Amino acid sequence: VARIDVGATAIDKAGHRHFMAKEIAEQPRVLEDVLSHYIKDGRIVLPEALDFREVDRITLVGCGTASLAGQVARYWFEQIAGLPCETDIASEFRYREPPLSDKSWAIFVSQSGETADTLAALHYAAPRVARTIGVVNVGTSAIAREADVALPTLAGIEVCVASSKAFTCQLAVLAILALKAAHDRGRLDDAALGRHLDDLRAMPALMSQALALSDDCAALAGWLSEASDVIYLGRGALFPVALEGALKLKELSYIHAEGYASGELKHGPIALIDRNVPIVVLAPRDALFDKTVSNMQEVMARHGQVLLISDAEGIASAGSGTHASLAMPSEGGVFQAMLYAVPMQYLAYHTAVAKGTDVDQPRNLAKSVTVE
Amino acid sequence: VARIDVGATAIDKAGHRHFMAKEIAEQPRVLEDVLSHYIKDGRIVLPEALDFREVDRITLVGCGTASLAGQVARYWFEQIAGLPCETDIASEFRYREPPLSDKSWAIFVSQSGETADTLAALHYAAPRVARTIGVVNVGTSAIAREADVALPTLAGIEVCVASSKAFTCQLAVLAILALKAAHDRGRLDDAALGRHLDDLRAMPALMSQALALSDDCAALAGWLSEASDVIYLGRGALFPVALEGALKLKELSYIHAEGYASGELKHGPIALIDRNVPIVVLAPRDALFDKTVSNMQEVMARHGQVLLISDAEGIASAGSGTHASLAMPSEGGVFQAMLYAVPMQYLAYHTAVAKGTDVDQPRNLAKSVTVE
Repeated sequence: VARIDVGATAIDKAGHRHFMAKEIAEQPRVLEDVLSHYIKDGRIVLPEALDFREVDRITLVGCGTASLAGQVARYWFEQIAGLPCETDIASEFRYREPPLSDKSWAIFVSQSGETADTLAALHYAAPRVARTIGVVNVGTSAIAREADVALPTLAGIEVCVASSKAFTCQLAVLAILALKAAHDRGRLDDAALGRHLDDLRAMPALMSQALALSDDCAALAGWLSEASDVIYLGRGALFPVALEGALKLKELSYIHAEGYASGELKHGPIALIDRNVPIVVLAPRDALFDKTVSNMQEVMARHGQVLLISDAEGIASAGSGTHASLAMPSEGGVFQAMLYAVPMQYLAYHTAVAKGTDVDQPRNLAKSVTVE
Repeated sequence: VARIDVGATAIDKAGHRHFMAKEIAEQPRVLEDVLSHYIKDGRIVLPEALDFREVDRITLVGCGTASLAGQVARYWFEQIAGLPCETDIASEFRYREPPLSDKSWAIFVSQSGETADTLAALHYAAPRVARTIGVVNVGTSAIAREADVALPTLAGIEVCVASSKAFTCQLAVLAILALKAAHDRGRLDDAALGRHLDDLRAMPALMSQALALSDDCAALAGWLSEASDVIYLGRGALFPVALEGALKLKELSYIHAEGYASGELKHGPIALIDRNVPIVVLAPRDALFDKTVSNMQEVMARHGQVLLISDAEGIASAGSGTHASLAMPSEGGVFQAMLYAVPMQYLAYHTAVAKGTDVDQPRNLAKSVTVE
């Protein structure tokens, strides 16, 4: 592991009580950094090697939160670029030794760039695919060095063991890759690409709006901190964000949270639901809104206490009978998933603070998992 | 939904206290039925349309337990047949509208054959892939009628809402498909195919041995029934079996159980572990045994109480310091995952009995989910 010598000023908490709070709050700025690095004068700037015209398939691999960034991006690659995409967690990928197309690209996502299983997955894929890409926060890391192309996520140093800004910056880089793929492959013309880039460039300001939900999340922390189980639900790109919300709560507060695709609820997990299990429902007003709301209503019919996260109009139309709601910005287009990461982070953070756990250094966890 | 008129004798409990116990115990016989239906005189008997030589990829889709059968089979298709394979839950698949290769086949797994999301996924895939295959227990169902090829799983009527014998019979059909694929594609010669078929034909007798673990599972039910959270761990094909074990416990006992790929534990969920969280570790002595044992030891170092499920030799080498162990048969070759379903079923069943929940009709659940 490369150890980086950082000055004391670079790693102070800047007035925040914990590094996690500081790192969540930094997201508008670091997103601005990463977006302006990869988008200049309205055009995507990526290494020339990243021409998606001949690619037949994308494989996205990572561990923990980084693998969830890949799962979000899968929806973007498939829906915006029409490019088949699969995701796996690195520890499974490297041992299942999947057949890979020699016209495919494999993308490895890791904050540290040193994650042992992800590096081993890169070693497995490198001789089998046309190109390997590392999406990493540490530019001098093993994955950055060994991938054919390394794309820095430019989130800055993340001190809290649980990832926040590194995740949203991973999403930003992956969103740009998906847009480049869509444009290269003729699925987006210049005008349509421009509209998506506008959505992305609006993200830092939208993220600032989402940060204003911190107090609302804090007000819900007492309720969540008394739960022993919490279920997070989402569909489409919001499904992996639900998984990330559950992972974050688990890591920080030691509450057993679990994420589910909303449509799977009836196939078993709904048996868990009673009035003691809070359900966090991620429901932006997209094409899947009505489906998700219908799943939410099934939960409420079993006395589940719902926290609905949607925009103001979504809450107005579906919020009746919920325990609480959080009103998100309605902008952001197909990249709204990125924005919904913020309430996931704040709910976990404030619940952990309410429970008095060690927010920045949760028990049993290490920042960079360099062993298998 | 087709309603089938069955005589009273066909659906009595045959001396068992619950349908679930009866259906678990029937597995050796129904596996014998399904294996002898698809393997005759040492040869695989499948419809002529199922020639895998021109297939470039398999997509496996289902909901709940059926989707987990697909996830197990993915390892078999990739590792035995070298055929790229992806899996998805039907409610996500149908709405993410993934690009599909017109040389690929899509397999839809459903006990009832009426699962609404799975049927909609079939409708999405049918015009886009070379062939659709339904793996269903009800031969007159919508999925059986609408798929290009319907393969019955021959498990007989399953009354308990939580699936047991239907799952292992789905696995048997999928195993036979994977072997056919491997043989058609020249990855297995006749002799190697014969050895795998021998492993499959040994399964009913091995399953009977595994059924003998019922009393051992019952003896652990008091311990599990006091837990509010249980974690199941596995690698490779045992990872989805761990997911199935957790789903079964959740459905039947309302305990919040969650399955994880062993290698993911360090990337977050290990924060949950303390002495109150039982960990069920699925560790057959395969190539991943040492890796799984190493993950188990990390859990034990955090005072996690481990139930190790392995064979006698695995338990002798790694069982020290565990809370308990269950000794499985060591035979079964690459299809051992099928066998490990049995302790998953019995642990959930006996824990539910110990808790006094309604085993055959858990709260909130329906046998066949014919709405979205």
